Amino acid sequence: MAKFLTNRDENYAQWYNDLVIKADMAENSAVRGCMVIKPYGYAIWEKIQAELDRLFKATGHVNAYFPLFIPKSFFSKEAAHVEGFAKECAVVTHYRLKHDETGKGIIVDPAAKLEEELIIRPTSETIIWNTYRNWIQSYRDLPILINQWANVVRWEMRTRLFLRTTEFLWQEGHTAHATREEAMEETTKIINLYAGFVEQSMALPVIKGYKSENERFAGAIDTYAIEALMQDGKALQAGTSHFLGQNFAKAFDVQFTDKTGKLDYVWATSWGVSTRLMGALIMGHADNNGLIIPPKLAPIQVVIVPIFRGDGQLEELSSAALRIKAELESKGISVKFDDRDNQKPGWKFAEWELKGVPVRMAVGPRDIENKTVELARRDTLTKETIPMDRINEHIPWLLNDIQDNMFRKASVFREENTFRVDNWSDFKNILNEKGGFIMAHWDGTSDTENRIKEETKATIRCIPFDSPDEEGKCIYSGKPSKRRVLFAVSY
Amino acid sequence: MAKFLTNRDENYAQWYNDLVIKADMAENSAVRGCMVIKPYGYAIWEKIQAELDRLFKATGHVNAYFPLFIPKSFFSKEAAHVEGFAKECAVVTHYRLKHDETGKGIIVDPAAKLEEELIIRPTSETIIWNTYRNWIQSYRDLPILINQWANVVRWEMRTRLFLRTTEFLWQEGHTAHATREEAMEETTKIINLYAGFVEQSMALPVIKGYKSENERFAGAIDTYAIEALMQDGKALQAGTSHFLGQNFAKAFDVQFTDKTGKLDYVWATSWGVSTRLMGALIMGHADNNGLIIPPKLAPIQVVIVPIFRGDGQLEELSSAALRIKAELESKGISVKFDDRDNQKPGWKFAEWELKGVPVRMAVGPRDIENKTVELARRDTLTKETIPMDRINEHIPWLLNDIQDNMFRKASVFREENTFRVDNWSDFKNILNEKGGFIMAHWDGTSDTENRIKEETKATIRCIPFDSPDEEGKCIYSGKPSKRRVLFAVSY
Repeated sequence: MAKFLTNRDENYAQWYNDLVIKADMAENSAVRGCMVIKPYGYAIWEKIQAELDRLFKATGHVNAYFPLFIPKSFFSKEAAHVEGFAKECAVVTHYRLKHDETGKGIIVDPAAKLEEELIIRPTSETIIWNTYRNWIQSYRDLPILINQWANVVRWEMRTRLFLRTTEFLWQEGHTAHATREEAMEETTKIINLYAGFVEQSMALPVIKGYKSENERFAGAIDTYAIEALMQDGKALQAGTSHFLGQNFAKAFDVQFTDKTGKLDYVWATSWGVSTRLMGALIMGHADNNGLIIPPKLAPIQVVIVPIFRGDGQLEELSSAALRIKAELESKGISVKFDDRDNQKPGWKFAEWELKGVPVRMAVGPRDIENKTVELARRDTLTKETIPMDRINEHIPWLLNDIQDNMFRKASVFREENTFRVDNWSDFKNILNEKGGFIMAHWDGTSDTENRIKEETKATIRCIPFDSPDEEGKCIYSGKPSKRRVLFAVSY
Repeated sequence: MAKFLTNRDENYAQWYNDLVIKADMAENSAVRGCMVIKPYGYAIWEKIQAELDRLFKATGHVNAYFPLFIPKSFFSKEAAHVEGFAKECAVVTHYRLKHDETGKGIIVDPAAKLEEELIIRPTSETIIWNTYRNWIQSYRDLPILINQWANVVRWEMRTRLFLRTTEFLWQEGHTAHATREEAMEETTKIINLYAGFVEQSMALPVIKGYKSENERFAGAIDTYAIEALMQDGKALQAGTSHFLGQNFAKAFDVQFTDKTGKLDYVWATSWGVSTRLMGALIMGHADNNGLIIPPKLAPIQVVIVPIFRGDGQLEELSSAALRIKAELESKGISVKFDDRDNQKPGWKFAEWELKGVPVRMAVGPRDIENKTVELARRDTLTKETIPMDRINEHIPWLLNDIQDNMFRKASVFREENTFRVDNWSDFKNILNEKGGFIMAHWDGTSDTENRIKEETKATIRCIPFDSPDEEGKCIYSGKPSKRRVLFAVSY
């Protein structure tokens, strides 16, 4: 199977696309820019959802659902927001089809034109804050800590499976608070929650920081982001959390009476991660043999492949395999027994490698004799033979070790590809040659950021929270700077 | 709180609407026909989803995701389907907004007109079968057992919260099979799964049966449905499972090679339940005090209300309440401790009754002294005092008993409101006076069904699977009939 993958080092973009399709994660649909998420890919997304949902609820959030449609006029209410979002979007103008009288099949009924066009939500701040107006009167109605799992649409010109699609799935949190401090605390709490999730479940290290003005969410006072480094040296923004100040409360006139009886506008945050995380998961770990899925998100954690010649052999192996499967499943480990009789073991090995299953267990007649099984780790591609009676203690340990090792490996990669750069030609050379994260001084102006982007395609991914104070000179303008920021070419 | 509800017997429709809004289940949004599902309502939907999802997976189904948009031309490919669905729907015609040069704000950019209009999915058979064409070559690729959790849009003229909304949430299963028998088996399996869910989790008895041709899904060979009786004597279709034959495979040219090497079209089913189930849940059980949520779907199963005068008393009660809460939660029971200090116990009692929490536990200073608590059942509105040391065994029993009692009560109601009718004037009288399920003979023609509908609004809800053979005469035409069918006015 893997031989059908384009070599990662030869054509990274093609390798990624091949991988997504051949590993049955997703494919392009008949609708331009929209993907079909296939069952294997969707099972990973379900695991991502389940863990994030657990984390949201553990921090006091609840789910709700708001309409897919947003009246066009809502976008105009927040000045910055309309610039950012009311552009490339899907517009519903009619609500009926009819048979064409001249026999052209079905056509849009011109009589069924909407008075006001509806936009398919690209993000839901406007419809949600329009709703919150009726929910909030007093400080006793606050905070509102709501999350929504939904599909959104942004009419992208160039799309790539998972990374940038016209329709995508995501969660969007929208919270309302009585004070600036509380809203800022929420913004921070969520970016930390996201970072914890991506590092612990997805096994990818991230850098947390502030976005520069250029990269801020349209309508936000401040945007926090987590940035992960992909294997081709590009950055991928894995999640954002926005401090919206009172912008949306003012745009939609959402006021509340505080404890002292004073009327004030409500403070807001919003935050989201999307199916783009699937892209990060793939690109952050996979190799030329295929996906490598971290055990915590793997729909199949262990695959058992029987090595057999005839039907009689398969029966004997099956009873051993099914016993092992049942025991592991009772420990909460998901196991697949691949007993297909129309494929050879080698073919199956390659297929499960392509699909990134963390542990492969091979059981043959000699194993039954010796009471052993052969284990292969997907992350290191190493094999070991262990006694059957050690399986139940060894597999949970092994899955943990793979999870840890994947994070370690990704961390080492990031460390080796993060550069402190102090002059412009180094900056350009690094970006030209291998990419990576560049920590460099910046004079704080959008103008400089734009020029750097024009010349190198690199942008400021974030101003890391933990970037220490340090006197320096802007890599581009030479003007004074007080701290380094993170540059990279991004997805 | 409950006093703000319209009386159920005076104005059932208004009572329902009041209840949905006042119990914080859902509300109308700024977008015509679209609702906002509020956190409390959404929490019930999440429980419905979780249990259905478990049942789907236990029967071998997997989830996937297909695009929101369907190219207009796809609808024309299946002749019956286009009649049923390509009518009142949301049509996307443009993909960009822009600033109006004459200062009218943002307008649709006429230059960004789509070559082919996109329809927001009213159901996904067409886009899914267009995709399956590429997934299916041989019998080895079958069966495909896929479910999708998604939002769909049908441009309804008259909408009612949960029961009929322009956008709604649902799941749609789409399966592909090598033989007619297997597809028919799947259709039956799912209608049984739905019936089991509605009866066991929602505590509502249902009648399973075939739809008449008039009521069949557009594009199906056969539609199976489950029908529940609401308290106003109207029927509510709670779920449908369709045997699609080879219709969609032929429309989208999906063929496979069978074991003998012969090429044939693939056999299909589709099936779905939606947020409409929320309407059934509400209308099937609620009373003039508010919702009554079956314990298995209740986001809060037990609410603890402290009865106290001053802060000192609350502290003492809190420690007892929190201990009880923790112990019940360790048994998997969801408990809310309502320690708000700005509302009196009576107000809280009424609020939790309105919200349908199955068990209310009141704890006052005298209870602490006597080591007792007072329990109130939402289903019967009865109270009992029990010793604190019996809580842990009693509550799980009580929740089961409430679940069982709710199903029993709904079953008795249905029995009392199901009528075997053999003449036309009785038929009309029953529908005029109280409604209900009517088992009557029918001559099997659409024409008769249409006339009955015109004269009484009643339709054939289904031809029950278990309706015995019985010679008789059609209630309307007097022509011979071989079995009774189920008539009712429906939602």
